[in-house]
Amino acid sequence: MLAGRYGRQVADGLMSVSTATLTSQLRKRGLDGCIFTNLRLLGKVERMVGFARTVRYLPLREDLFPARSAGLNAQKRAIESLQPGEVLVISARGIQDAGTIGDILAMRAAQLGAAGVVTDGAVRDLTAIDSLDLPTFAAAHHPAPLGHRHVPWDTDVAVACAGVLVEPGDLLVGDADGVVLLPEPLVAELVSASLDQEDEERYIADQVRSGASIDGLYPLNAEWRARYEAARERDPS
Amino acid sequence: MLAGRYGRQVADGLMSVSTATLTSQLRKRGLDGCIFTNLRLLGKVERMVGFARTVRYLPLREDLFPARSAGLNAQKRAIESLQPGEVLVISARGIQDAGTIGDILAMRAAQLGAAGVVTDGAVRDLTAIDSLDLPTFAAAHHPAPLGHRHVPWDTDVAVACAGVLVEPGDLLVGDADGVVLLPEPLVAELVSASLDQEDEERYIADQVRSGASIDGLYPLNAEWRARYEAARERDPS
Amino acid sequence: MLAGRYGRQVADGLMSVSTATLTSQLRKRGLDGCIFTNLRLLGKVERMVGFARTVRYLPLREDLFPARSAGLNAQKRAIESLQPGEVLVISARGIQDAGTIGDILAMRAAQLGAAGVVTDGAVRDLTAIDSLDLPTFAAAHHPAPLGHRHVPWDTDVAVACAGVLVEPGDLLVGDADGVVLLPEPLVAELVSASLDQEDEERYIADQVRSGASIDGLYPLNAEWRARYEAARERDPS
Amino acid sequence: MLAGRYGRQVADGLMSVSTATLTSQLRKRGLDGCIFTNLRLLGKVERMVGFARTVRYLPLREDLFPARSAGLNAQKRAIESLQPGEVLVISARGIQDAGTIGDILAMRAAQLGAAGVVTDGAVRDLTAIDSLDLPTFAAAHHPAPLGHRHVPWDTDVAVACAGVLVEPGDLLVGDADGVVLLPEPLVAELVSASLDQEDEERYIADQVRSGASIDGLYPLNAEWRARYEAARERDPS
Amino acid sequence: MLAGRYGRQVADGLMSVSTATLTSQLRKRGLDGCIFTNLRLLGKVERMVGFARTVRYLPLREDLFPARSAGLNAQKRAIESLQPGEVLVISARGIQDAGTIGDILAMRAAQLGAAGVVTDGAVRDLTAIDSLDLPTFAAAHHPAPLGHRHVPWDTDVAVACAGVLVEPGDLLVGDADGVVLLPEPLVAELVSASLDQEDEERYIADQVRSGASIDGLYPLNAEWRARYEAARERDPS
Amino acid sequence: MLAGRYGRQVADGLMSVSTATLTSQLRKRGLDGCIFTNLRLLGKVERMVGFARTVRYLPLREDLFPARSAGLNAQKRAIESLQPGEVLVISARGIQDAGTIGDILAMRAAQLGAAGVVTDGAVRDLTAIDSLDLPTFAAAHHPAPLGHRHVPWDTDVAVACAGVLVEPGDLLVGDADGVVLLPEPLVAELVSASLDQEDEERYIADQVRSGASIDGLYPLNAEWRARYEAARERDPS
Repeated sequence: MLAGRYGRQVADGLMSVSTATLTSQLRKRGLDGCIFTNLRLLGKVERMVGFARTVRYLPLREDLFPARSAGLNAQKRAIESLQPGEVLVISARGIQDAGTIGDILAMRAAQLGAAGVVTDGAVRDLTAIDSLDLPTFAAAHHPAPLGHRHVPWDTDVAVACAGVLVEPGDLLVGDADGVVLLPEPLVAELVSASLDQEDEERYIADQVRSGASIDGLYPLNAEWRARYEAARERDPS
Repeated sequence: MLAGRYGRQVADGLMSVSTATLTSQLRKRGLDGCIFTNLRLLGKVERMVGFARTVRYLPLREDLFPARSAGLNAQKRAIESLQPGEVLVISARGIQDAGTIGDILAMRAAQLGAAGVVTDGAVRDLTAIDSLDLPTFAAAHHPAPLGHRHVPWDTDVAVACAGVLVEPGDLLVGDADGVVLLPEPLVAELVSASLDQEDEERYIADQVRSGASIDGLYPLNAEWRARYEAARERDPS
Repeated sequence: MLAGRYGRQVADGLMSVSTATLTSQLRKRGLDGCIFTNLRLLGKVERMVGFARTVRYLPLREDLFPARSAGLNAQKRAIESLQPGEVLVISARGIQDAGTIGDILAMRAAQLGAAGVVTDGAVRDLTAIDSLDLPTFAAAHHPAPLGHRHVPWDTDVAVACAGVLVEPGDLLVGDADGVVLLPEPLVAELVSASLDQEDEERYIADQVRSGASIDGLYPLNAEWRARYEAARERDPS
Repeated sequence: MLAGRYGRQVADGLMSVSTATLTSQLRKRGLDGCIFTNLRLLGKVERMVGFARTVRYLPLREDLFPARSAGLNAQKRAIESLQPGEVLVISARGIQDAGTIGDILAMRAAQLGAAGVVTDGAVRDLTAIDSLDLPTFAAAHHPAPLGHRHVPWDTDVAVACAGVLVEPGDLLVGDADGVVLLPEPLVAELVSASLDQEDEERYIADQVRSGASIDGLYPLNAEWRARYEAARERDPS
Repeated sequence: MLAGRYGRQVADGLMSVSTATLTSQLRKRGLDGCIFTNLRLLGKVERMVGFARTVRYLPLREDLFPARSAGLNAQKRAIESLQPGEVLVISARGIQDAGTIGDILAMRAAQLGAAGVVTDGAVRDLTAIDSLDLPTFAAAHHPAPLGHRHVPWDTDVAVACAGVLVEPGDLLVGDADGVVLLPEPLVAELVSASLDQEDEERYIADQVRSGASIDGLYPLNAEWRARYEAARERDPS
Repeated sequence: MLAGRYGRQVADGLMSVSTATLTSQLRKRGLDGCIFTNLRLLGKVERMVGFARTVRYLPLREDLFPARSAGLNAQKRAIESLQPGEVLVISARGIQDAGTIGDILAMRAAQLGAAGVVTDGAVRDLTAIDSLDLPTFAAAHHPAPLGHRHVPWDTDVAVACAGVLVEPGDLLVGDADGVVLLPEPLVAELVSASLDQEDEERYIADQVRSGASIDGLYPLNAEWRARYEAARERDPS
């Protein structure tokens, strides 16, 4: 799927480059607004790449809750319509004292091939969520159902999540450090630059392990860059 | 306008009952989700009654900001289309370190007959805003334009503002204490009960001023209620 | 002990139903005030059921600290008088930059048969606490003794802890998701309803694992409910 | 009353020395725990001196609220039993999104001769409260009744308020800067030292107004102290 | 002083353009880091323009406090050496529960011709500070002396204040909305662009007052700009 | 190194006594300002003892960032000049939504024999940092580079970190509970008293494990102290 869209090299890069590297490349392009904050990774899979599907919670209104939460509500509709490779993004206004998704819905998302879940709220059923083959990024855990603080409101609209404006379809990448959003027009460029950066950093790390000073090495000055390029020419990694 | 919709008595009540009384009546009906939090009243008019028109800000995304903020952006569209008696509700995610509305737009809102402005963000041009004949409820003041933290995104959608889910058209009432939302089906009932409550409380306050103990008086026990009713029969206020 | 008080079925249920399920049942009855917030589970035992014994900290007053903290102070009295099956609830005003209980007192609590410890403050001796056979729910960890911010004040009074009003004797249940309080008159009803809910949810989870859509399944509509009941009739779980 | 207890000079001092001076004297004696935080003064009287009467709120428990809030509840009992010169201290856990005291109860407190009100919660009926001849120190204002977040629980117990442990009977002093608590055994000493400090500071301020450098003057070095003492001898203030 | 450095027109502009306008111009140049946050203006002068002199507080260390706070400590040295037109910037780590500057030191600063005071901490002696002819921007007020939380540490170093990196000598401008920093190389350009912007906005405000729609007017489209320029040609403001 | 400076016994004590014990001893001497707050231990080494080397971040100023962050910037200079046994202290103003140190620099620090890293900001490359033989204390993790919020400014100055004033050369001790600072003149005394305290507490813990009540035992009363001393005489631990 990623390969069909971006080509094999970029697709592979998306599966390998770290969010720490991607944030460096985002910042170089002035895109500070694409970096999520305050998320912890749960689940047995430590890598997430996928396209955003959004659901928006709004604050509890007791008069509106019953109709909005019954049956196949916004959250359940969003989950039920997930396509393989999509990331469910739950906008919960950063509220940490009520759950958002729990084990059954997370299981359903995984079964439908979801690439992950991201929420600035809390998850319920922490132990079960943490044992799934689904990377879930959440701000906290809490036993309460969403109705404790929220009404599930609508889906497939632009939302705020963990400080980032997410539009449906935005490409998200996550690892243990957190989550970043890659604007579509820049995906190939960001990944390519990140692959280059990580190759340099692997070389730098090797030199550091060998006792080199970081002065001139990190970032590479002209002399070190020449050595790096020579090394890569000898032995393309 | 209010009279045409709710009848004269309710319309008058909407202009007189305090938000403190209305919250008591909302709570009696389990409607805690209708009470805004952390707002300060600015402007020379100390009373606001009107129907919500909403605008939603989302977090700054540098790649999306230019197109979304140019020309007649969401905030300006919302203001330009305000009808007399409407309240502009600006959802700013509680962010206090960037402005939302400033003096020119507030002036335009006032000119179009807006009933007020409510935002969980900050206002700019504090001195000018505070001198308008327009009640403005804001969480803070800050010199920065909205682009410091926000993108003005869309209008006329349900939003979260100061902890309350606001749908376009919701009736809002504000005074020095803050703002409340009155769900449409309950407006007449809430106002009527509030008028009764305030009449009782005026009587109670008179007794307190005369030195009465609040024991049995506040709330009225049977004996005091009989006296109150007798007094009102003698002299309907 | 639990069986003697509530009967075998409820006692067993208390040891098995998740706090996520209990919060759903509490919310159905309008009891949002019984759900603790922002707690992390420490220790080798992942389940807590017991009755609250309370100790209350107040803010450090240098003039009152010496007399109140010496010898068998309030915290130590509370611990020393713990009965088997009791949960020590330490009210620390949500302060995270001073410890509350440390390893020796936790060990003593465990030795006396305490069912657990709950505090909205921090624990000291994190490694030792985390290795005990005693479930401890805390908001944080911190090396400082309680006198850094607190005076241990009194015991066996109603307290606020992690956002919940706890009276001595209240029944508390905890697991990895957090802690809930079950009001005594509702214990049997809450547990029974939770057992039913979890049985339904196990059935639902099985269907989800088999690829069923959650539409109509979660929550069960009439058709799915009929199948569920038929399945349970065939094979009572 | 104050004069009877502390003598005329100390009583007069209590009515005149600023809380800023008193905090300096408290700190000199290691009593940092006696300084309240985050309070704003309301009302037409800018000076408060009186003895604490306490009321404690606990978090809303829907099952306990009805019985505890009905009739002459803890808050009303505390107010109704206020003696002249007493300060009502309302412990509200720093919660700012629900009111504590409103206009009728504040009016009753004033009528009974209360010296003031201090709460780390919010007041209701801001405009009315601010027009009373009663100094009220609060963290915020909010229209909601206390039941939005609290249960009024008990009275005349030690409480935490705005970061300070307050026991019934503690002496409180307040002005525009905030509130401090003076431990009984130190009242005379603290006031006497504060009077001396303020006399020195008046002298220093006069010198500053005349263009003197603060080097050596503030605090007084030996030379300046000699001049100060000579001046005071010539003209005892 | 300003005129000597920047020329008459820029100097006048510095005394007239609002911080709200300056933030717009700063943002256009990508300088979001020059906008202070969460400050309230005190004092009888509503305009501040001056050059930063810095003092840095560090967290209280009881072992270091005596030597560092005695005599002419860092804060007092900074104040005593203030030159006319300088702004005292007190870096207090955003701590609001201890004072920074009080009335005597503020009076001395005013006497020495200081242009203002800016602190992300609290002021003491609120009433006195608010009555001085010295604009003071603070995050809060609090009666405690600085030693309650701070040690006055050093002066004339780069500091963080209210979210902004301030170097000694940086130009600061403040009004009711808050404070901004103008990087030296851009002062003339920022002021000039701000004067132009405010001239346009005055024209726009006039049109709004006359009933014009903001569509096309704010910001000026080609047609409105032509009218604006024609008007200014007829009647240079 | 430690042994050369403090003698063998103190050096060994520094490697063994817990931070929880050291905070008790610090508090006994009124040194509350030496206890760090809100830090989590990462890395495979669970014990840190070393001398502070400081680096200070200031808030992002877009105009100053390029020159200050390029090449061997303040952070890199600090790291490159680390001596064996030194602890890198990164002052990040408690900002959690940007990284400070990442894997390459941490690796270099480890290679140079650093004793650890302490920051009140976030680390990048969480997984790599957590796998190093270097104890790292951080408030959070975040993928963004420091430039997202900070400018690396200067080194080897006194800084605030996690609520503590740290001067270059201050001795820091860390374990799973957090970090404390030991003022140089008190190191021997604090360690010696901590060793004594831990010996007592080991004895107390043994008694608790044997079923003893803590009444009179913890802290030791005269009778228990006699037994303790007799036991130690028989069997010096």
